[in-house]
Amino acid sequence: MTVTSPQGFVAAGVTAGLKASGRSDVALIVNQGPSMAAAAVFTSNRVHAAPVKWSRQAVADGQLQAVILNSGGANACTGPGGFTDSATTAARVADRLGLITDNVAVCSTGLIGVRLPMDLLLAGVDEACATAHADGGDAAAAAIMTTDTVPKQAVVQGEGWSIGGIAKGAGMLAPGLATMLVVLTTDAALDAAALEAALREATRLSFDRADSDGCMSTNDTVILMASGASSVTPEIADFTTALTGLCQDLARQLIADAEGASHEIAIEVTGAATEADAEEVGREIARSNLFKCAIFGGDPNWGRVLSAIGVTRAAFDPDELDVSFNGVMVCRGGQIGDDRALVDLSGRHVQVTVDLHAGSETATILTNDLTYDYVKENAEYSS
Amino acid sequence: MTVTSPQGFVAAGVTAGLKASGRSDVALIVNQGPSMAAAAVFTSNRVHAAPVKWSRQAVADGQLQAVILNSGGANACTGPGGFTDSATTAARVADRLGLITDNVAVCSTGLIGVRLPMDLLLAGVDEACATAHADGGDAAAAAIMTTDTVPKQAVVQGEGWSIGGIAKGAGMLAPGLATMLVVLTTDAALDAAALEAALREATRLSFDRADSDGCMSTNDTVILMASGASSVTPEIADFTTALTGLCQDLARQLIADAEGASHEIAIEVTGAATEADAEEVGREIARSNLFKCAIFGGDPNWGRVLSAIGVTRAAFDPDELDVSFNGVMVCRGGQIGDDRALVDLSGRHVQVTVDLHAGSETATILTNDLTYDYVKENAEYSS
Repeated sequence: MTVTSPQGFVAAGVTAGLKASGRSDVALIVNQGPSMAAAAVFTSNRVHAAPVKWSRQAVADGQLQAVILNSGGANACTGPGGFTDSATTAARVADRLGLITDNVAVCSTGLIGVRLPMDLLLAGVDEACATAHADGGDAAAAAIMTTDTVPKQAVVQGEGWSIGGIAKGAGMLAPGLATMLVVLTTDAALDAAALEAALREATRLSFDRADSDGCMSTNDTVILMASGASSVTPEIADFTTALTGLCQDLARQLIADAEGASHEIAIEVTGAATEADAEEVGREIARSNLFKCAIFGGDPNWGRVLSAIGVTRAAFDPDELDVSFNGVMVCRGGQIGDDRALVDLSGRHVQVTVDLHAGSETATILTNDLTYDYVKENAEYSS
Repeated sequence: MTVTSPQGFVAAGVTAGLKASGRSDVALIVNQGPSMAAAAVFTSNRVHAAPVKWSRQAVADGQLQAVILNSGGANACTGPGGFTDSATTAARVADRLGLITDNVAVCSTGLIGVRLPMDLLLAGVDEACATAHADGGDAAAAAIMTTDTVPKQAVVQGEGWSIGGIAKGAGMLAPGLATMLVVLTTDAALDAAALEAALREATRLSFDRADSDGCMSTNDTVILMASGASSVTPEIADFTTALTGLCQDLARQLIADAEGASHEIAIEVTGAATEADAEEVGREIARSNLFKCAIFGGDPNWGRVLSAIGVTRAAFDPDELDVSFNGVMVCRGGQIGDDRALVDLSGRHVQVTVDLHAGSETATILTNDLTYDYVKENAEYSS
């Protein structure tokens, strides 16, 4: 059920002392081959962290042998010194395991604007390299947690091959902490170009549609490594479908564990002229604080949904909009629909469906409500 | 200090019974001429309320004789029936005062998706028409309040002419309630084209730059009426400057009274390549929930400021960004700057200054922090 489920990977999770809590904070995932094909997607935030700069270079040639990750510090906005810290970390892994430095990706998560304590980190790296083993995925998943309350792991089986994954993050519901880091492994035999295509499609339909608070981290990274150890080369379409399902599973786990949230909300937009329209409308609703507060309050406030739709560029006629909360169409044709008292928002799962009546495309965005605990977590975090 | 300060206007504020609180809820401002030149700006939300549809038509010819406003119901998403309600309200004012129906603008604010109780409203309209007088501005300012805790009024004196204004709203910090309504009056002798140009410039530099929670109302309206009663025609530049100052005064009053807020935040962006860049950067910071929670927590979290800047399209180099909180440059050149412990955020006013080092343009966006009370107000509002 984790990154060491596919053949050809070992992993570790150790405690380097980076976190005040004393919990484990350094994770390592090593691809033992025979292939070292890899692909990655990174935050599109123009202010990105040193490990993102480093890893983007490292994966540029489509090859990775290992990923080293730390929680307890994002190493973002730390200048040239921070970049050197990332490079030094990668070099240490390469030295201890006999790898090529440029084949080691680095991920960091934690507070922005603070240098990492390199002596502690490098000692942790040494221990991780010494202890990585074929059952180490669970320990790695635990070591990348920050405000996560549970580790996120998943696996999917193909015919003779499999994909495993671990993730951390609270769907951006947490601050400097908020970074989403995901490491995916497969023993399928696929080249870097195939991995890249599959990963872009999978992330577009999963992590890109999980939007907790609209804030994009400086450190978000999703890395996919293929060992080829199964010697099986799946159809790329089959692999992409499996990878997409796995990423959607991990995205749901991230949203379900979002800090401070009391409701998980799926916003399904149907009847859109284009998929981009559906996505824009879903995202705009997901980013409306008024809507998110209403869900927290158990209020099926469809006026706030229409108000959010109205600022998008999507094709629609305001007089044709239908909005349902948990199956009750409280707004029909842009006006008052069924009795809002029929809507039950007491459960943790909320399904909001919007029909734009402008076409046949759809998209679903996952988000959370806005709660006292969200404010509390994010007001008290770094002080 | 209000809309009846300029010559040629009478006003009223009465209690029609639209609000559960029993407070006054119908306001009327009448332009007695000799001119009936007018201009207006409305919400750009594509889902806009019936009174916005009505008033946009009414002011299309550059003439208004009166504005009738109600709190206690937004008359938004109410279909053709809602539009008829707005038209009926305008016609009633025209009938009672001997005006032309198409010269009466209508504004509404309150919950979306609920029809107005027209019997109560029209009785209130009758009373307002019967009681409008030259000292009625204060009563009008009170009658348009929703979650506002204080009325917002201002006046500015020119040479032989003046401008007065009233406003309501919580800078979009409130929900269906959130509508910003502004009525401005002047006794200057200016035609509709001059008023339109001055109003567009003034709102661009004032209300458009007050962004409390990024949510745009279905009902936002700013109306400017000129009576010409002073017989003075000011230079348009002088008039525009005065009007802009008055609107900025009212915008500050709106932000200062934003629901649930514990800090008023001015985000000043300097060194921008274009004014649009400065505005985009300021707005993105103002819309970051993470930043707003940090201010609530008294935390000068510059990492969240950089993270917000990074998602804009503005011209800047991440390694040249300077960020100050209340005069302390906590981020210099994109890295750790002066000691954050030197920043005092205990006061209500917070000044955040960002220097993009990419040019010489500037813009200031006003916003608030994100607090428990914001969540409370917006979770409990309509249930």
